[in-house]
Amino acid sequence: MAQLHLLTPRGFRGTGVYAGIKTRHMPDVGLLVCHTDAPATAAAVFTTNKVFAAPVKVGREHVAGGKLRAVVVNAGCANACTGRQGEKDARRMCQLAAEVITVEVIAAEPAEILPSSTGIIGHLLPMDKLETGIRDCGLYLGDSLEHAMLFADAILTTDLKRKWAATQVKIGRESVTVAGVCKGSGMIGPRMALAKPGGSVRPKRGMHATMLGYITTDAAVPAPLLRQLLGACTETSFNAVTVDDHTSTNDTVALLASGASNAAVRAGTAEARKFAAALQEVCQSLAYQIAADGEGATKVVVVKVKGAASEADARVMARAIANSPLVKCAMHGNDPNWGRIVSAAGLTQAAFDPDRATLKLQGTIVFRKGQPVPFDAAAVSELLKAPEVTAELSCRLGKGNAIVWTCDLSKEYVTINADYHT
Amino acid sequence: MAQLHLLTPRGFRGTGVYAGIKTRHMPDVGLLVCHTDAPATAAAVFTTNKVFAAPVKVGREHVAGGKLRAVVVNAGCANACTGRQGEKDARRMCQLAAEVITVEVIAAEPAEILPSSTGIIGHLLPMDKLETGIRDCGLYLGDSLEHAMLFADAILTTDLKRKWAATQVKIGRESVTVAGVCKGSGMIGPRMALAKPGGSVRPKRGMHATMLGYITTDAAVPAPLLRQLLGACTETSFNAVTVDDHTSTNDTVALLASGASNAAVRAGTAEARKFAAALQEVCQSLAYQIAADGEGATKVVVVKVKGAASEADARVMARAIANSPLVKCAMHGNDPNWGRIVSAAGLTQAAFDPDRATLKLQGTIVFRKGQPVPFDAAAVSELLKAPEVTAELSCRLGKGNAIVWTCDLSKEYVTINADYHT
Repeated sequence: MAQLHLLTPRGFRGTGVYAGIKTRHMPDVGLLVCHTDAPATAAAVFTTNKVFAAPVKVGREHVAGGKLRAVVVNAGCANACTGRQGEKDARRMCQLAAEVITVEVIAAEPAEILPSSTGIIGHLLPMDKLETGIRDCGLYLGDSLEHAMLFADAILTTDLKRKWAATQVKIGRESVTVAGVCKGSGMIGPRMALAKPGGSVRPKRGMHATMLGYITTDAAVPAPLLRQLLGACTETSFNAVTVDDHTSTNDTVALLASGASNAAVRAGTAEARKFAAALQEVCQSLAYQIAADGEGATKVVVVKVKGAASEADARVMARAIANSPLVKCAMHGNDPNWGRIVSAAGLTQAAFDPDRATLKLQGTIVFRKGQPVPFDAAAVSELLKAPEVTAELSCRLGKGNAIVWTCDLSKEYVTINADYHT
Repeated sequence: MAQLHLLTPRGFRGTGVYAGIKTRHMPDVGLLVCHTDAPATAAAVFTTNKVFAAPVKVGREHVAGGKLRAVVVNAGCANACTGRQGEKDARRMCQLAAEVITVEVIAAEPAEILPSSTGIIGHLLPMDKLETGIRDCGLYLGDSLEHAMLFADAILTTDLKRKWAATQVKIGRESVTVAGVCKGSGMIGPRMALAKPGGSVRPKRGMHATMLGYITTDAAVPAPLLRQLLGACTETSFNAVTVDDHTSTNDTVALLASGASNAAVRAGTAEARKFAAALQEVCQSLAYQIAADGEGATKVVVVKVKGAASEADARVMARAIANSPLVKCAMHGNDPNWGRIVSAAGLTQAAFDPDRATLKLQGTIVFRKGQPVPFDAAAVSELLKAPEVTAELSCRLGKGNAIVWTCDLSKEYVTINADYHT
């Protein structure tokens, strides 16, 4: 079977080009286009940070109607904290993309384009470079693996790895593909939510990145169902990753359904559940890849909290553990210092009783019912050298479960973030 | 004027000895005794972590009556997550201290002793060493500067510096002294609250350490007033420090008033306000010293938030800024990357509107009303090399002000916490 990728779902074309915005010579402007007759049905979640970038403002507007013709994105400059000029520039990105698409594919409106930016905050977009980049994208659109890779690369900043995932699922007699790419390495602590048309966005307790993600499918899914599925899925995928718990100004994940497969997904059906499972698989894979490529990361830390009083409580505790610099440093040092994990679980508002709890590190019970359990510290330290380590806390208070993915905290994180000058 | 110290207030004796609990040869058992006829009136605040150490459990009980004869403390082992044996050991510490004090000074009850411990979680106290240490303390009690230094040293763990503060204030015709010592360097994110006799302790939103602090005064202050003053003062001092936002299992600050000066402080009087100001001065100095000696710190970062919708909002935003690893790394690298600060202010539940806000870094305006303000980045970077740097965010939403002290995040922090094995 051929390698699945972002442009495998029928009806999409894309590419990425180098326009000179990033300092490294790597693609920094990307365009992803739905080139079917009608625009894709679409949904998107955005940062809940009260300081949100111009493309987030414009993106919320443009996705409100539930359809998108394209996504236009740049890396190297976030277009955040840039005032009116920033907003004008984000709208200009959409205008340029619409012009390019109209020439190459089909009639496109600027209001059907989702703009995204990632990079440094507080700088205006270099519009001349961006304009050249978007026009170049228009010239080189395609649906090959290489085109998908170029788009995936165009959204990266401090990321060391390209991130993507894809799966296929049978909907009726049709096989449909769900595929995605994302970026994220630092300023990762997404708390994303669906934008309510005309409504306000309330930050969620518990989480924060610039994380960008774009998911394509050739299933035909009505926009309200797409919104519902993406909203639910975000909680257990993108919103369950933290590197530094710093919610970015630009976090955005968009889901576009071209409908080009003729496989229709309707709310409340077995097909909807199958489609939701496929979407979940792709989003969780992408989220995991962000944790694995966290700035300075040498390993993924999987924090599982089980049996909390509620799912919300489980999330809050898992995130407190995942965000503790002491826990992250202990994991970096392969140190089974479980007191840091148990005490992190206790410091939140969530209900927690250490006298009922059990903690396992890499499968070894180290703490049970308020007391240490003797274990072979050298052996567990050895187990902690794995590329993925798991801390599993059982609370025995209820049925709330949650998983949060993070990474260890290394000196490299400090190097990246202390030496990366504005 | 002679150097003021913890034992300057009349009516106190203390000391610290090395009992072999710490790996470094430094005092690790301390005893602070009020040796007037009656015990000191007293109040204490404790961690609100649901995972609290045995000495915190016992200490809450013992201070409930508003009087304390003594404080007995050890460093090197936190006696946390140690179950029933841990509680038995904490009670035994009090028993031993009471025996020692009864011999040396005056009749003391175990229930009048506040026990404290700091160090690694999940290990039982080495009771043989501790017993020898407490008995040795009994032999060497005194009220000299040297005795105060020995007690101050006995509570340190990863701290590089001894921490103390003292001031004098006229109450009526008497000059009274307020003096204190504290410890804290890592696992610093105190959220302390007064223990309610027989009541539960509700964690506060916003803050976390093992921070230990002991404050003495020779003023005569009724216990209810002491409670009130310490509770209020904690919010703007110890609870306003963060190193890693990890609330410890053992955080404790106790205030003991011997009354040996005959200067009486009564609620609602001008004297009470003067005394409160002196207490605040000492507590804030101690809190500042903790930030300055944070693990791996090369500088103090003072985060001021002004004009928030409420004081609570101001605190939440100041703490979010102070806790962002991205902000802390930028400060370490002398990088005026103000986007990280503004975005940290926006990621909380607090009301914030970037279009009304102004941010100053070391006195230089870098952001105003949603937009960057041109500034000399090299010059501000130079200013950020100071041992104390200030970020001041004006929100223009209301009258809520807050200050939070933290430190930068360096590679040394990672070294300390990844290599400090259990």
